[in-house]
Amino acid sequence: MARINPNYGKLEAGYLFPEIGRRVRVFQEKNPSARVMRLGIGNTTEPLTPTVINGLRRGVDLLADVATYTGYGDEQGEMALRESLARRYARYGASLEPDEVFVSDGAKPDSANIQSIFGVDNAVAVQDPAYPVYVDTNVIAGRTGKWKDARYEGLVYMPCTEENGFFPDLPRGKVDLIYICSPNNPTGSVATKAQLKAFVDYAIARRAVIIFDAAYAAFISNPDLPRTIYEVEGARRCAIEINSLSKEAGFTGVRLGWAVVPKALECEDGKPGVLNRLWFRRQTTMFNGASNIAQRGALAVLSPEGQKECQGLVGYYMNNARVIREGLESVGLRCFGGVNAPYVWMKTPNGLSSWECFDKMLEEAHVVGTPGSGFGPSGEGYFRLSAFGHAEDIERAVASIRENLRL
Amino acid sequence: MARINPNYGKLEAGYLFPEIGRRVRVFQEKNPSARVMRLGIGNTTEPLTPTVINGLRRGVDLLADVATYTGYGDEQGEMALRESLARRYARYGASLEPDEVFVSDGAKPDSANIQSIFGVDNAVAVQDPAYPVYVDTNVIAGRTGKWKDARYEGLVYMPCTEENGFFPDLPRGKVDLIYICSPNNPTGSVATKAQLKAFVDYAIARRAVIIFDAAYAAFISNPDLPRTIYEVEGARRCAIEINSLSKEAGFTGVRLGWAVVPKALECEDGKPGVLNRLWFRRQTTMFNGASNIAQRGALAVLSPEGQKECQGLVGYYMNNARVIREGLESVGLRCFGGVNAPYVWMKTPNGLSSWECFDKMLEEAHVVGTPGSGFGPSGEGYFRLSAFGHAEDIERAVASIRENLRL
Repeated sequence: MARINPNYGKLEAGYLFPEIGRRVRVFQEKNPSARVMRLGIGNTTEPLTPTVINGLRRGVDLLADVATYTGYGDEQGEMALRESLARRYARYGASLEPDEVFVSDGAKPDSANIQSIFGVDNAVAVQDPAYPVYVDTNVIAGRTGKWKDARYEGLVYMPCTEENGFFPDLPRGKVDLIYICSPNNPTGSVATKAQLKAFVDYAIARRAVIIFDAAYAAFISNPDLPRTIYEVEGARRCAIEINSLSKEAGFTGVRLGWAVVPKALECEDGKPGVLNRLWFRRQTTMFNGASNIAQRGALAVLSPEGQKECQGLVGYYMNNARVIREGLESVGLRCFGGVNAPYVWMKTPNGLSSWECFDKMLEEAHVVGTPGSGFGPSGEGYFRLSAFGHAEDIERAVASIRENLRL
Repeated sequence: MARINPNYGKLEAGYLFPEIGRRVRVFQEKNPSARVMRLGIGNTTEPLTPTVINGLRRGVDLLADVATYTGYGDEQGEMALRESLARRYARYGASLEPDEVFVSDGAKPDSANIQSIFGVDNAVAVQDPAYPVYVDTNVIAGRTGKWKDARYEGLVYMPCTEENGFFPDLPRGKVDLIYICSPNNPTGSVATKAQLKAFVDYAIARRAVIIFDAAYAAFISNPDLPRTIYEVEGARRCAIEINSLSKEAGFTGVRLGWAVVPKALECEDGKPGVLNRLWFRRQTTMFNGASNIAQRGALAVLSPEGQKECQGLVGYYMNNARVIREGLESVGLRCFGGVNAPYVWMKTPNGLSSWECFDKMLEEAHVVGTPGSGFGPSGEGYFRLSAFGHAEDIERAVASIRENLRL
């Protein structure tokens, strides 16, 4: 008699994005002529750039010829791509070997699966608010208790608030795995080197492991802010980094990411090299490589011409972020983020709850955002607006907020 | 202090394919002029067909235009593709709804991940020999004891031998999850409807769940043999099916597969619908969809023209299988499989062990195959030869075996 994984039963029933969809449907049924503008989800909207399209076409064409056709490649990705990624890290002053880089089909699967190389008895800390995947995958793996009072028992929440500049204080008590996302989804804050250094020192002292999600690193324009945790001394001993081309190059649908698991990384019962080998074993056993076409596209993204074009894409979305932030601030709304990150984190007006703000934005301005409380208890009282969209749609949405939101 | 998942330590240290690689390297160093012919790995070698290439090119071109660009899609795959897959099942007499089909990046990840929706206390049965992914992923999840005497404690091995026609007898004792692969990798045997019916009845009676790997279904030419377990009455209540386009269409590098989790499927603590929803939750939480380019290619594979072309590809490899089987039999070697499956399962000559046969094949004929013992204890005394290769290479390898193998 087969039995299900009982941890699935602990997951909070009302999931964020389905509930948003439900409320938007109800609104549209009542207001069929209203044009709803969506700034809710971080999904890219602009086409791939010419160099990248050529790379992908070349990837397809190689498969049409018996002389260049390839089937299974290395699960951890083509050597040329891993070398190219290692060279990118070298430009940030981080020295990595190609076999410390594992190409994958995206940062979401890597963020989700990385916990599986650790035992279920590790105590997990997450930024609060945080990308739900870090939390949900640890619930499913059995590292938490039940959902109670808007949080999971046994999970360490590290509040990110206006008071601490949306970067958490060092956690108290026993913590073994620490998820940090910078530039942050959802708050749009970016950790400084000093802030990361404090966590790296903490992790080394306690042999904890940091899982660093750098999926939005390409949106950093301030040269003083670290684009990889490996800019911080000691990080190779205590940190795994996850990144992707989804937002930088518009690969949300193409699917290409990577994880860095340094050989110097260690933990209580894992000497340097062990975690690198465990992730290799995990990926070779449970994954079969990113699409070879996507890998050709990635090589094009990483070429000098591709990088130049993708910086144009990033600039496009960052201009949207500026439009959102300046537009909201012009009517007195308090905003954070949106400068080195494609998310604007708005404080809800008049002390509204995140969901009250959601309903108000939808009903009055016909704009959909994401309630901050959906990312964790410290997100309550905030509202996330995404800069991913066509510029004209963003401008129309901001104009509608300015004109129609009753403040 | 972070700690690793201790189950990784249970995995057998000497993995099959690295050991094959090591022995080939040693041989090549000693015999630098020998031309080694590889019939070891089931990796496709022939280019994609014109219709499929056009579908992939179209997938790339859609991403170049703002009007047709797409980012994140549904994690479970585009509706058009799921509908197309459901129509394929309908042609085999199996009625499925599109939301019972979950598109993925391949049968290997699905075979690996499907166990995660079940509790760790389920007893697992595998065919012996079997594709190592079924075994290794359950070891990593903690459903077995240690590796001892060429088997994992706590895992139920179902021997597939010449006596039972390489299809197992019903398992004895407590069994909750049952992995069946047909057409079988590595034995090349194909289950009849009656054989599958016995397992379906057994599973329904015990509320066990069958995980049916049909990745080689396209290689069945005998119309009496089932291409999906859902041809068998009752299978929707007890079976998950996994399949892919890797071998049928040459998508080993492109990456596109799917899992069918019927809503009628139930288990001890899962009413009909629960397992379908759990897999949906797993995929939406831990996966972000197959590449949208690969999905366009898949639609082309499933089109009438694509199916015609891919049957040509399948026929090409099946001709290789015939050449291997007839060639080996012509010198008195006993062979199984290779008729409705792209693997030939050879009994080792003169009672050699699988690894002794490997060394003999390599040293005398310069041919690399796969030792049957690498797939499980009942594979001992057998040797797998793969039909995936260029026809001229297969013919040369078979000629070398006929001329050089000392029997």
